[in-house]
Amino acid sequence: MAGGRGERFWPLSTDQLTKPFVPLLGPRSLIQETVDRLQPLIPKDRVLISIGKAHEALARAQLPTIPPDNFIIEPIGRDTSACLGFCALHLEKRNPDSILLAVPADHFVGDPEAYRRTLARGIENLPGTNGIVFGITPERPETGYGYIQAKKPADSSAAWPVTRFVEKPDAVKAAEYIKSGTYFWNSGIFLWHNKVLLELFHMHMPQTHQRLCALRPLLAKRDTDAQIFEIFSSIERISIDFGIMEKAGGFGLIPAEFHWDDVGSWAALARALPADENNNIFQGSHAAVDANGCIVYSDAGLVAVFGTSDLVVVQAKGKVLVCPKDRASDLKQLVRALERPLETK
Amino acid sequence: MAGGRGERFWPLSTDQLTKPFVPLLGPRSLIQETVDRLQPLIPKDRVLISIGKAHEALARAQLPTIPPDNFIIEPIGRDTSACLGFCALHLEKRNPDSILLAVPADHFVGDPEAYRRTLARGIENLPGTNGIVFGITPERPETGYGYIQAKKPADSSAAWPVTRFVEKPDAVKAAEYIKSGTYFWNSGIFLWHNKVLLELFHMHMPQTHQRLCALRPLLAKRDTDAQIFEIFSSIERISIDFGIMEKAGGFGLIPAEFHWDDVGSWAALARALPADENNNIFQGSHAAVDANGCIVYSDAGLVAVFGTSDLVVVQAKGKVLVCPKDRASDLKQLVRALERPLETK
Repeated sequence: MAGGRGERFWPLSTDQLTKPFVPLLGPRSLIQETVDRLQPLIPKDRVLISIGKAHEALARAQLPTIPPDNFIIEPIGRDTSACLGFCALHLEKRNPDSILLAVPADHFVGDPEAYRRTLARGIENLPGTNGIVFGITPERPETGYGYIQAKKPADSSAAWPVTRFVEKPDAVKAAEYIKSGTYFWNSGIFLWHNKVLLELFHMHMPQTHQRLCALRPLLAKRDTDAQIFEIFSSIERISIDFGIMEKAGGFGLIPAEFHWDDVGSWAALARALPADENNNIFQGSHAAVDANGCIVYSDAGLVAVFGTSDLVVVQAKGKVLVCPKDRASDLKQLVRALERPLETK
Repeated sequence: MAGGRGERFWPLSTDQLTKPFVPLLGPRSLIQETVDRLQPLIPKDRVLISIGKAHEALARAQLPTIPPDNFIIEPIGRDTSACLGFCALHLEKRNPDSILLAVPADHFVGDPEAYRRTLARGIENLPGTNGIVFGITPERPETGYGYIQAKKPADSSAAWPVTRFVEKPDAVKAAEYIKSGTYFWNSGIFLWHNKVLLELFHMHMPQTHQRLCALRPLLAKRDTDAQIFEIFSSIERISIDFGIMEKAGGFGLIPAEFHWDDVGSWAALARALPADENNNIFQGSHAAVDANGCIVYSDAGLVAVFGTSDLVVVQAKGKVLVCPKDRASDLKQLVRALERPLETK
């Protein structure tokens, strides 16, 4: 899944070049890294790329080794339930008995081997559940994430039965969750038998399921783009978490063995990349003299920070951003202001 | 005079592209602005450009309307006394009775008309003095400038007789100087009868004068570059202030009617350019949201400051600098560090 907007990583990402397509954490883009780290567990001919029309060309260019037929082009963005329902239809066409592993294409994963081990454990534990969710052991009382409560199983190799999904808690609740040892961050990585997922749509999102059934025969025919667009765009705009996961039961949770971050802002790079001895994070050509706690990104020439603390400094796409780390999550405010006409001297 | 190094305005200026040649305060470079603002008082065919060998091509390219013979190429940098002695020799060749107006090519002048008016007053008052200095009424207890003490004349149109030159004072002294009303900043703009200047060399810098006399016949001959280099490079490395002005008497001072700044660092742009309502200074494409007291310079794409205070942010020559305003005067420290091998990821 490579949807989403581009404003959180301005000026590197934009609505034209959204987060999955930028080389945020290394020389390869996040979507390239996502496909890479699935290897060899999910061979490339079994990796489907769910992408908006606007980013199709970009996705194909960045992923030349993914077979051309594996790109699933969403006619319009309708959140993750529509996205995954549409993927389930495409997968059904290939093999009605397949399983669907849904992976966001814009996250950080620290240890690819542990990641694949965790996914494999999920696949092993899938039978007998309505689906598997992958939970991250919370490292801090994060109020920006969804949480999943689950019950520790007697058998340590088994999945944890999911008790409930909890949307973004306040700081007090989040601290309690950490203490309890039974709450996990919702990584957004899900696993279903494809048939079961379609059945869950049927039970919990009947209107969406109806639309999916209307779409099904169109996928096999030519020149149906306009019809597909019309039906798809009428699907309710809601996440899979709200639409299905919070309503249905019978899910199992596999605790992640890997370090994970959703990298929600420039400041989050500090959780995904190693720091120097002064707690600075660098990506690209840089110099730091008498600087600490800074995050410096450059896709071009040298960026020098001198005598500064706790700043985000980015040179990307010929533009420069400077803001304090603790304002990086408000970047929308700047991007909105930039959309208004600018004074330029 | 367009000598000097390039580190104070890194990354815009470098040792290859020194301060006089950068468009720091507007679309034209400081040396272009300097020549422009002398018009029509000093016609271009009477403007001589004193320049180091390394910057000759740059100077000629930036000043295509200055006659080619008007470029005086210093074989090697030997501070302002050698520079001005060498200029005096060249001027003597053209007209032994000329007057020499020495103007640094890297300063800010707020009001070109008042500037020319002030210079013209200097020229009127030159007869009967050993030279005219132009003094700036101090606006703050600056400890980085030289000061000139002078005595207010009864006739307000006359020059102020210079009492003494004072090198960079401490803050207490500087505050006293301001109060007194008889101290001025030394602008580095000087005026002499060319003959008198050479005589001052004879009296106060006899060794340098001897070298100048050895150079004199070489200027008229061909293929004397090597000889000129040898003699010139043996001249004492000392400023005209130390070498002559502080020793000799008989100088007059004309108080400047114009706003002036030597623009010694990025932070000084705040004294030379107008600020927005949040006290930000901009040059080039910029955006400021919730920012105040920042100095933003771009020779290329947009530079955005968001939620920041009192920073210098520069995008120039493909590089980026971020530092607090109050560290801008220490920029040498960064440039020195950059001369050492850099880690680049």
